[in-house]
Amino acid sequence: MKINIIGRGNVASHLSKAFANVADVSLINPHTLENYDADSDFTIIAVSDMAIATVARAIPPTRGIIAHTSGSTPLSVLIEKGNQTGVFYPLQTFSKDADLDYSTIPFFIEGANDSVQKKLYELAASISCNVSLIDSEQRRALHTASVFACNFTNHLWALCDSLLHKNGMNFNVVRPLIAETLRKTGKMSPFDAQTGPAVRQDTNTISAHLSLLQNDEELKNIYTLLTQSIISHHTYNKTNNKI
Amino acid sequence: MKINIIGRGNVASHLSKAFANVADVSLINPHTLENYDADSDFTIIAVSDMAIATVARAIPPTRGIIAHTSGSTPLSVLIEKGNQTGVFYPLQTFSKDADLDYSTIPFFIEGANDSVQKKLYELAASISCNVSLIDSEQRRALHTASVFACNFTNHLWALCDSLLHKNGMNFNVVRPLIAETLRKTGKMSPFDAQTGPAVRQDTNTISAHLSLLQNDEELKNIYTLLTQSIISHHTYNKTNNKI
Repeated sequence: MKINIIGRGNVASHLSKAFANVADVSLINPHTLENYDADSDFTIIAVSDMAIATVARAIPPTRGIIAHTSGSTPLSVLIEKGNQTGVFYPLQTFSKDADLDYSTIPFFIEGANDSVQKKLYELAASISCNVSLIDSEQRRALHTASVFACNFTNHLWALCDSLLHKNGMNFNVVRPLIAETLRKTGKMSPFDAQTGPAVRQDTNTISAHLSLLQNDEELKNIYTLLTQSIISHHTYNKTNNKI
Repeated sequence: MKINIIGRGNVASHLSKAFANVADVSLINPHTLENYDADSDFTIIAVSDMAIATVARAIPPTRGIIAHTSGSTPLSVLIEKGNQTGVFYPLQTFSKDADLDYSTIPFFIEGANDSVQKKLYELAASISCNVSLIDSEQRRALHTASVFACNFTNHLWALCDSLLHKNGMNFNVVRPLIAETLRKTGKMSPFDAQTGPAVRQDTNTISAHLSLLQNDEELKNIYTLLTQSIISHHTYNKTNNKI
């Protein structure tokens, strides 16, 4: 099996590592397309979303399947390349340094037709135990949902880190709590695992927190919006509130 | 060593488990105070924040130290009990079922004087390897920061879960991504670990996400506020934006 992986970023370099044991991989510079092998089985375009269409247009005619790796870009961006096209989307955050276990990374596949879809599915299954078929609209929802689950979450950790530093503490003190919060969602849904003053409608504690944040408009706005959102999603039987 | 633990909730029951090997523990019903041992070395009040003052007032005279376990309640709530008082705050989310490793739970200690503080510190150190001294104002900041790091984070996971379900997927698909996001903050600060469309100021992707959320005012508001917050905290050199 021969694979062209086009890209110079972390996704391209991790994918080429992941495929090293199962295929002949050529890692291709997207600016020059030098050494592009038109006789490959797969061409994976792992460049920034904005650049996918341009790179695709520059690819020489190939007998293989062309797929992009973007969460928020529809399959239709490859429309000019015909129906041997698809999407090969790994849902993971790829850092340069990270030593990832590729077999646990979820891959999401879409194909312009069943035969392409099957081949891309098998390609993903050759490196991962976690492969699903989803369409472009589902993938966009998945990408949006991951922004909530990961990017926004990470930003809340950064805000927490900064608040702790301002008060002479550091992020390490909350790590065990975060790890346990995540662990709990393995036993019950995040909805059922919700704790804290908002879900208890504990207005005294909420006021104490808002008063601590009184000089920080941004944190106060985020605190207020997320607290309201938690309250609106949970009905809470106040008569159950025991000491 | 003898300890009274007053409370009927998860904190009281976990603390009594944690101390089982190092002390004689009496778990006391806060409504009756039946079997309260005035000859104990420590009395730990592990009841809801609102009830601490009432329960403290009802405690018979004791030779021991009285401490509460609340993150957002100042030490001064125990002022009527004199200066043998303090705070014994474990920063963890305690579920009934959870099998916790108590030695990794961070404890935060405050005492009305140095001698009390030292004794409460040693008490915490008898079950945990992670004990710090902080004052009431720091503890309030810590409690507020944990709401950002854990309660709000968990709620974002719940919103993500619900968005995924609406689109025929489930929360398991984002678990590896969350785990990796958390792992990364062990190698760099959450600020430096920030990824996603907001930090890249990738307005195309942000628009695609907002258009997916167009019928959900609440998710749209949260998405917009957190995206603005990420952008305002990060300066991003657009000229570095490579394909």
